[in-house]
Amino acid sequence: MFAEKTQSAATVEDYLRHASERVNQALDRLLPSEQELPVDLHKAERYSIFAGGKRLRPALCLAAYEACGGQGDDALPAACALEMVHTFSLIHDDLPCMDDDDFRRGRPTNHKVFGEAMAVLAGDALLVQAFELVARGGNAACALTLAESLGSKGMLGGQVVDILSEGKHVELETVDFIHRHKTAALIAGSLVIGAQMANAATATVEGLRSFGFKIGLGFQIVDDCLDLEQTTETLGKDAKSDLAKGKATYPSVMGLEASKKKAHELIESAIADLRSLPIEGTVLESMARYIFTRVH
Amino acid sequence: MFAEKTQSAATVEDYLRHASERVNQALDRLLPSEQELPVDLHKAERYSIFAGGKRLRPALCLAAYEACGGQGDDALPAACALEMVHTFSLIHDDLPCMDDDDFRRGRPTNHKVFGEAMAVLAGDALLVQAFELVARGGNAACALTLAESLGSKGMLGGQVVDILSEGKHVELETVDFIHRHKTAALIAGSLVIGAQMANAATATVEGLRSFGFKIGLGFQIVDDCLDLEQTTETLGKDAKSDLAKGKATYPSVMGLEASKKKAHELIESAIADLRSLPIEGTVLESMARYIFTRVH
Repeated sequence: MFAEKTQSAATVEDYLRHASERVNQALDRLLPSEQELPVDLHKAERYSIFAGGKRLRPALCLAAYEACGGQGDDALPAACALEMVHTFSLIHDDLPCMDDDDFRRGRPTNHKVFGEAMAVLAGDALLVQAFELVARGGNAACALTLAESLGSKGMLGGQVVDILSEGKHVELETVDFIHRHKTAALIAGSLVIGAQMANAATATVEGLRSFGFKIGLGFQIVDDCLDLEQTTETLGKDAKSDLAKGKATYPSVMGLEASKKKAHELIESAIADLRSLPIEGTVLESMARYIFTRVH
Repeated sequence: MFAEKTQSAATVEDYLRHASERVNQALDRLLPSEQELPVDLHKAERYSIFAGGKRLRPALCLAAYEACGGQGDDALPAACALEMVHTFSLIHDDLPCMDDDDFRRGRPTNHKVFGEAMAVLAGDALLVQAFELVARGGNAACALTLAESLGSKGMLGGQVVDILSEGKHVELETVDFIHRHKTAALIAGSLVIGAQMANAATATVEGLRSFGFKIGLGFQIVDDCLDLEQTTETLGKDAKSDLAKGKATYPSVMGLEASKKKAHELIESAIADLRSLPIEGTVLESMARYIFTRVH
C-alpha cells in the first residue's frame, strides 16, 4: 500500500513466518487442552487464539529480545502472553454490547459460536492466563509492563474512549488518544517486555518503548486507511465498518493522504529512535518498514 | 445462624472493621481517581469497589500475613488486589449474559448504572489493575498465586460450570466443583498470598492453602443456606434467587440440615489444619468460626 515490496520484505516475511510457527507451537503447549475441564471454556479460548492471527506482537517481542542479545526460548512464554491478551481484547471488543461484530478474520466471532457468557469468560481467562505465564517466568518487571500496557492508562482506556466516541463528532486529539492507548500501548509493551526479558539497560528499554509507540500508532493509521480502501473479501471482515459505525479514525478526521503522510513520518521517526540504540536493530527496522506495506 | 455470638466474635468484628478501614483507605489511594481519564471507567470501577463489601478476602490475606510474622503495610496492596479481582468477578457475574442481576448489596448493579460495555470494561480494568498492584510489589510468586486462583482451574472455571449448570439437574459432585473453584480457590489464594508476602515456609503456605479451601467451601455453603432462609431485605439482593434461577447449591442437592452439618465439619477440619502450623493462628481461627455465624 505505502511501498513496493523490497528485498528485505522477503526476509521479514521469513522471520514473521518462523516466529509465528514458534508462537503457535508454544501456545498449543501452554494453553489448557480441549479435553481439560471446563472443556467449553478451553474450546472457546482456542477457537479465537487459533483463528489465524499474524502474531505481530509476539514477533516484535521476540525480535526485541534477540536485538538486545537474548538467546533461546526464554522470552517465548511472554510472547505468547502478548498474543493471549491481544485475543482477549478482540473477543471482548466484538461483543454485542461493544462493537457487535459477527465476523473476525473471516470466521464467526467468539460469541456467535459459544454465546455471550462464554465469550466474556474466555476473554477473562485468556487475560488471567497471560499473567500466569509471565508470573511463572519469575520476572515481576514484565508482569508490571503487561499490566500497565493494558490498564485504564493503556489499552482498556483507549477502548473506553473508542466506545464513548462512536457516532459522535470527534477531534484529532481524541482519535490520537484512542490509537495511542488502544493499539500503540500494547505494541510498545511487546517491545519493552522483549527487552526486559533480555535484561537490557534502562535507556535501551525506553528507546524501544518510544520506537514501539511510534510504529504502533503508525500501524493503526495504516489499518484505518486500509479499512477505507479495501474490500470485505481482502480484509476478512466488513470493509468500511469503521465508517458505517461512525468510528473515530485518522482518515475520517484528517483525510486519507494526510493520514498516509503521518504514518510515513512516524515510521521514519521510529527508525531514527531505533538506530540511536546500542543494539542489533536490523530485523526490527525491517519489521517496522514492513508494517507499512501491508495489513496485520 | 450456626452459633451464638461469643466473646471472640466481638474481637473478630473489631479486627474485620479495622482491616476494612485500612483496605478502604488503600483502595482509595491506589485506584485512579474519578477525575483521571477515562473518567467514566474510573467512576464505574469505584462504584462497585465502594459498594459496601466486607473486605473478607483482604482481611484473610492480612491476617495470614500477620500470623506468619509479617509486620506493617507491605501486604496491603496485595490485599487490595484481592478485593479488586473479587469485584471484577461480581461485575461480570451480574451481566445480562451471565446471572442477569439488577441489584447487588442493595444497589443497582454496575451495568444498570453504567451500561453493559462499561461494566465489561470496568471488570477487565479491575482485573488488570490487580495484577499491576501485585507486580509492583515485585513478588512474582504472589502474581502466580493470584493468576492460578482466578484462571480456568480456579474461579473462572467454577463460573463456567455454574453458568452451564443453571436450570439443569446436577449431582453433588458438580456443586462441589463449582464451589471449590468459584469461591474457595480465591479465598485459599488470599491466605497463600498473605503467607507468601511474609516469606512463610512452604509447609506453612500449603497448610494455609488447605485451611483456606475448607473455610472457602464452608463459607459458600453457609451463603447458600442463608440465600434459602433469609429475606430480600436482610441480604440486600433477591432472596431465594438461587432457587428461582435453578442454581446448583449444596442445600438444593443435599438438603439444609445436611449442608449445615457439612459446613460445620469443614470448619473443624480447617481449624485442625491451622492448629498444626507453627504460626500465631488465633485471629485466623476466630475468623474461621465467625464466618459460620453470619453472612459476608
